Amino acid sequence: MLKDFVKANMPEEEEIKRELKTARDKLAGYQNQIKEAKLPVMVIMEGWGSAGKGTVISKVIKNIDPRFFQVKTYKRPSEEELRYPFLHRYMLDIPEAGKFTFFDSYWMEEIIKDYMHGDIDEETYRKRVNSVNTTERSLTDNGYLVMKFFFQIGKKEQKKRLKELQENKDTKWRVDKADIHENAHYDKYLEAYDRYLTDTNRSVAPWYIIDASDLKWTELQVLQFLNQGIETALKNHALAVPILQNTFPLNQSHKLATIALGDKVLSEEQYKAQLDALQKELGELHNKLYRKKIPVIIAYEGWDAAGKGGNIKRIAAALDPRGYVVEPIASPEPHEKARHFLWRFWKRLPKDGHITIFDRTWYGRVMVERLEGFCSENDWQRAYNEINEFEKELADWGAVVIKFWVHIDKETQLERFTERQNTPEKQWKITEEDWRNREKWDLYEAAVDEMIEKTNTTFAPWYILESNDKKYARIKALKIVIDAIREACKDK
Amino acid sequence: MLKDFVKANMPEEEEIKRELKTARDKLAGYQNQIKEAKLPVMVIMEGWGSAGKGTVISKVIKNIDPRFFQVKTYKRPSEEELRYPFLHRYMLDIPEAGKFTFFDSYWMEEIIKDYMHGDIDEETYRKRVNSVNTTERSLTDNGYLVMKFFFQIGKKEQKKRLKELQENKDTKWRVDKADIHENAHYDKYLEAYDRYLTDTNRSVAPWYIIDASDLKWTELQVLQFLNQGIETALKNHALAVPILQNTFPLNQSHKLATIALGDKVLSEEQYKAQLDALQKELGELHNKLYRKKIPVIIAYEGWDAAGKGGNIKRIAAALDPRGYVVEPIASPEPHEKARHFLWRFWKRLPKDGHITIFDRTWYGRVMVERLEGFCSENDWQRAYNEINEFEKELADWGAVVIKFWVHIDKETQLERFTERQNTPEKQWKITEEDWRNREKWDLYEAAVDEMIEKTNTTFAPWYILESNDKKYARIKALKIVIDAIREACKDK
Repeated sequence: MLKDFVKANMPEEEEIKRELKTARDKLAGYQNQIKEAKLPVMVIMEGWGSAGKGTVISKVIKNIDPRFFQVKTYKRPSEEELRYPFLHRYMLDIPEAGKFTFFDSYWMEEIIKDYMHGDIDEETYRKRVNSVNTTERSLTDNGYLVMKFFFQIGKKEQKKRLKELQENKDTKWRVDKADIHENAHYDKYLEAYDRYLTDTNRSVAPWYIIDASDLKWTELQVLQFLNQGIETALKNHALAVPILQNTFPLNQSHKLATIALGDKVLSEEQYKAQLDALQKELGELHNKLYRKKIPVIIAYEGWDAAGKGGNIKRIAAALDPRGYVVEPIASPEPHEKARHFLWRFWKRLPKDGHITIFDRTWYGRVMVERLEGFCSENDWQRAYNEINEFEKELADWGAVVIKFWVHIDKETQLERFTERQNTPEKQWKITEEDWRNREKWDLYEAAVDEMIEKTNTTFAPWYILESNDKKYARIKALKIVIDAIREACKDK
Repeated sequence: MLKDFVKANMPEEEEIKRELKTARDKLAGYQNQIKEAKLPVMVIMEGWGSAGKGTVISKVIKNIDPRFFQVKTYKRPSEEELRYPFLHRYMLDIPEAGKFTFFDSYWMEEIIKDYMHGDIDEETYRKRVNSVNTTERSLTDNGYLVMKFFFQIGKKEQKKRLKELQENKDTKWRVDKADIHENAHYDKYLEAYDRYLTDTNRSVAPWYIIDASDLKWTELQVLQFLNQGIETALKNHALAVPILQNTFPLNQSHKLATIALGDKVLSEEQYKAQLDALQKELGELHNKLYRKKIPVIIAYEGWDAAGKGGNIKRIAAALDPRGYVVEPIASPEPHEKARHFLWRFWKRLPKDGHITIFDRTWYGRVMVERLEGFCSENDWQRAYNEINEFEKELADWGAVVIKFWVHIDKETQLERFTERQNTPEKQWKITEEDWRNREKWDLYEAAVDEMIEKTNTTFAPWYILESNDKKYARIKALKIVIDAIREACKDK
């Protein structure tokens, strides 16, 4: 986990400041809800010596009323403490309902130190890891929110920080032998931390690895994850199965309302000229990905009458029919409904070197099924994570996963509906249901915003296709598909 | 997991036959409930070649209507199958709601074979294990019951079976190269299986290791675990947090109604003579366990007026007051109620070398809290497993854990209540609440039966103290405590 940790790009200082303000206010605002919901919150900070765990805790608690939190730290266990089970002193410090406890390192540190110093053997290590997993699960089953952060810094950075601390007589005391030992044997510790994190990374209490290279940035990451965790836990109340915390890297996303549509137009000539060239290019790439055995999945969602069909047609026209298939997705058949909701999409996956274009997708779960009550709240709340996991499987397999939201505004939809209604040969394209859905535009828009925000992963990103002008949207789609496939072919 | 697997004692042939009948009928009876509840059931058989997976499946399915199950087997993936993600062919075969699928080996076998033959590297192995864990969790979150069995046989036994199969020309075809390879490198495979089982042993879909040395016994173990799993899954419907399958070894237990009380009496002389000797012996053992640093936990539960207090007194009288404490357990205080229900017992643990006697215990969760509605059904249903886990921690720490149910019949209780009421100096011992509880005797009795059945683990067993004659119960308790401590001192 730790060894393949990829840092997110650190935002500009100005943006960090702005986001810090938002995140701090959000946490402060959650206090009362946490109290009302009687949610006990455990915030566990682990990581390298001098990575800034204590400093960040002192920042984070500034947003919380002192009656609602405690901070706990642990030394090496005393003779007295060693006479109790390993878990004992940690269990005594769990927070009560409606309050936070911040742990400046918890059971991980003791386990790793004991293991690295040879004080416990492999079997005891495994037993302790098992105890930790069992206990964290039991805590979360009993309504605890368990947030675990690992503060990551590199060997050089740690060395530099330790040196600075030692050279200042006011901070000298903060560096102990164990820190020096850790830095001297950095690679071995990295191995041990990596293993521990992997062993204890459970969906009920996942690890968040924090890039601790910059203090403000560190604080921001912790606050944002913590706020997400609290939001999830507050939602969990009274649901049948706990919703899992999100552990996938997300791209920043923008609400549909902020997307400009008016200026996204192409003239007929611009369109024609680009279309031919792009389709030719895509056709060539199709051969390439067939040879390189890269599977491609293109997922289309969008408003009724946004132009999904025509857009798909322009992609498909460029492809060799032996190497692609378009899958129109309607309501599930009975034998499909009787299985896991993703099953019918597993059935429709392309084999490697092939392309599948989905005309509507598994996102029905968090749109139509959510809004029409075809599944429980618990089902759709949980589905964001289940979908991210599904798409991660596809990405890990080597698939290119492209998700399009074909976007128009409400007026454009009305124009197109009316035109369909008034044109005999287009009347089949417009139904009562379309009109009914249109009435729920605002509900759908909120659901789509939430869907994009929660599933805009780095490995399967969403693209908005501005489609008030269908020509513009088609050209944009072709370009995105071409770029993504070219990139994938380069890698392989 | 596999390396430290301890076989349960195989029952006599007659008992196996009797139990098989019961288990088969039970499974047949569950069919309709599974259909009604729309529960999809995945039964996954993994294990050593020739351990009898196929044979047992063919036995188990005899109890199920053919319309409600399928059996799936997998060969090495074909060229075509290799063009899809690893999970693909397995996902396609998941059962639909209300039906069983039996898998004669599932994804484990492919992963281990690929790994052992060097077809996948360490990183891919880990990725696949992660995919399996994620997928099994997602399936269970979506209502699937996932039962995983590993059929265990030793190296010699496997060799013998393979030889027998090969020597018979009708069965020769059932032995393939992979089986021979597995047996030749038994220890290496054991290592690999052990690791995989440990890596994928999650509380939502735990592994059941089956001693596959005898066919009927193997079938019985599978049926009993399967029936337990189905029972849990049927209960899970509409509960806030899934109840976990039991994974701890249980002793056989007997319903309270079957326990004879009348003949369990001692004369005053018998009692006196034994009491002195036993108390002396326990006093000496107390010194020994203090030196050996063994912690001892004695938990008392029982009917009102059964004689808990007097029983505890006879134990305590034998002990050095510096080395023990009696903890009377009443309703939780507000700061205790605000935490995990086991927290207040963590707080009251003895340190090593010491004894804590609990006068009433954490079992309040599944008795009074259950019956008086002080916790949700989900809370107490889940608590059996949480308590087993808690006691396993204590046992692993090295503690002796003894649990007493002090038992009397309903008439004896009435006599004692009446006597208390009529004796001025005993009146404080009888309250309105005692009378109210007495009215719920039958409900309590059912709850106690269930409690003992589900928490009678090998590492923290229940003992019934027949206490219509209090003297008998006291002597029995002393003997049990002495035996358990002596045994623990011997080990250390």
